[in-house]
Amino acid sequence: MATEKPLLENLSLNQITTEYWSLKEAVDGCVKADIPWISLWRHKIDEIGLSESKKIITDSGLKLSSLCRGGMFPAVTAEQRQKSLDDNRRAVEEAAELGTDVLVLVCGSAPDRDIHTSRKWVEEGIEQLVPFAESYGVKLGIEPLHPMYAADRSVVVSLGQANKMAEKYNANQVGVVVDVFHVWWDPDLYNQIERAKGRILGFHVSDWSVPITDTFKARHMMGDGVIEIRRIRQAVEQAGYHGPIEVEIMNQALWDTPGDEVLSLIKERFVEHV
Amino acid sequence: MATEKPLLENLSLNQITTEYWSLKEAVDGCVKADIPWISLWRHKIDEIGLSESKKIITDSGLKLSSLCRGGMFPAVTAEQRQKSLDDNRRAVEEAAELGTDVLVLVCGSAPDRDIHTSRKWVEEGIEQLVPFAESYGVKLGIEPLHPMYAADRSVVVSLGQANKMAEKYNANQVGVVVDVFHVWWDPDLYNQIERAKGRILGFHVSDWSVPITDTFKARHMMGDGVIEIRRIRQAVEQAGYHGPIEVEIMNQALWDTPGDEVLSLIKERFVEHV
Repeated sequence: MATEKPLLENLSLNQITTEYWSLKEAVDGCVKADIPWISLWRHKIDEIGLSESKKIITDSGLKLSSLCRGGMFPAVTAEQRQKSLDDNRRAVEEAAELGTDVLVLVCGSAPDRDIHTSRKWVEEGIEQLVPFAESYGVKLGIEPLHPMYAADRSVVVSLGQANKMAEKYNANQVGVVVDVFHVWWDPDLYNQIERAKGRILGFHVSDWSVPITDTFKARHMMGDGVIEIRRIRQAVEQAGYHGPIEVEIMNQALWDTPGDEVLSLIKERFVEHV
Repeated sequence: MATEKPLLENLSLNQITTEYWSLKEAVDGCVKADIPWISLWRHKIDEIGLSESKKIITDSGLKLSSLCRGGMFPAVTAEQRQKSLDDNRRAVEEAAELGTDVLVLVCGSAPDRDIHTSRKWVEEGIEQLVPFAESYGVKLGIEPLHPMYAADRSVVVSLGQANKMAEKYNANQVGVVVDVFHVWWDPDLYNQIERAKGRILGFHVSDWSVPITDTFKARHMMGDGVIEIRRIRQAVEQAGYHGPIEVEIMNQALWDTPGDEVLSLIKERFVEHV
């Protein structure tokens, strides 16, 4: 069920890896580098508008692996939470319009001293979003983030927690996204990957290296850290996921490198380490 | 079983909170501030030797809540692992000599791409250390560290994992240390605190605040972050722990503050937030 090497036909550029490229530059870069998939971020779509973004993608022949991102549900006032829900509905519409059925959810954080209430708000947000997303044929992919982001990006911090949340819904409504950077430390990882069978909506790769001086930009190129990426990729395949594999790396040095060089390095490291 | 406010008679200064103080200065500071407990770090003991350290503690009348730290078991060669074990035995002897029955274990990290083997080395190290420690009347307190330290400080990353490891031994041999900074994010935290009943050997407090620019010195004074410290402290009491509560904060700004001011602030925040 799992291949020794990953298939280059599954390689996807998550656009944040080339943060200083416009959407057009990222798409052109992928076409030139023979990378068949791309994942778009909404702040890049906003720069040129949805219809122009769609035209660029369609003309390029690239396939869209996901849209990043919905989520960010917790907020102290009901009004703010409603705003967040409205924004999530727009994200669903954008995903559908652009031609992907996966909206990645970065669920949001604990803004004060009550992580439990934040978790409840996340559950409520997803529950409210599901019927809307389903009507557009868009699945919600809950991405557990590394616990170091619990206070600023996501109160969903492990694959076990994400699985439990997803299992309340049908597999065509809600699933999980497995990102090696976020889950590699988890003693229960392989059990939880198996448990996620049929619900894995995406697989993201990068690497973990110390020291960390900026938690957001802490990711490294595959092979430059300690994560057993290949083992995790094979487990995800054993659990039935054979879709696109996104390379998602927030890293200042990489952002400062010419995009074409980054894509070339990605392909090399993908074959060697994923 | 749990008190509304914490008892000041349980307050302990973990010495790293006043890293720029010598052992003598830290002890004198606690006496002056009426803080009844202290936890010593071995690098501070090394500065003046064990017998001088013991004399200072004994003369002061302070009680020793724990010795920091043993552990750091994983290493690539058998020779390095043997060296680590030897050092852990010295740590046990020091704990016994100084008059505490708790040696805190920071278990060590995954130096390469195989966290499973590192975890095996930790298990082996503890197994080898237990009979020696027992013969000195010293208990090993496995302290799960936050998952952001999995590559540089500890492959034991959750209380569940620590409980499982400790349960292989008698409660007078191996237990766990609960540090709010390391465990606050865990969706299974309160279950695991309950499970740890009878095995909790220490309780540490600080706070979590973002952004983090240095993972080691990332801790904040209680009340300056998002952790539900009081709720966790009460859960730990419900699980039968009524021992010393160590304030353990690695924080550059705090280190740069005069120690007496730090101790004064600790007492204030302890009553208010712990």
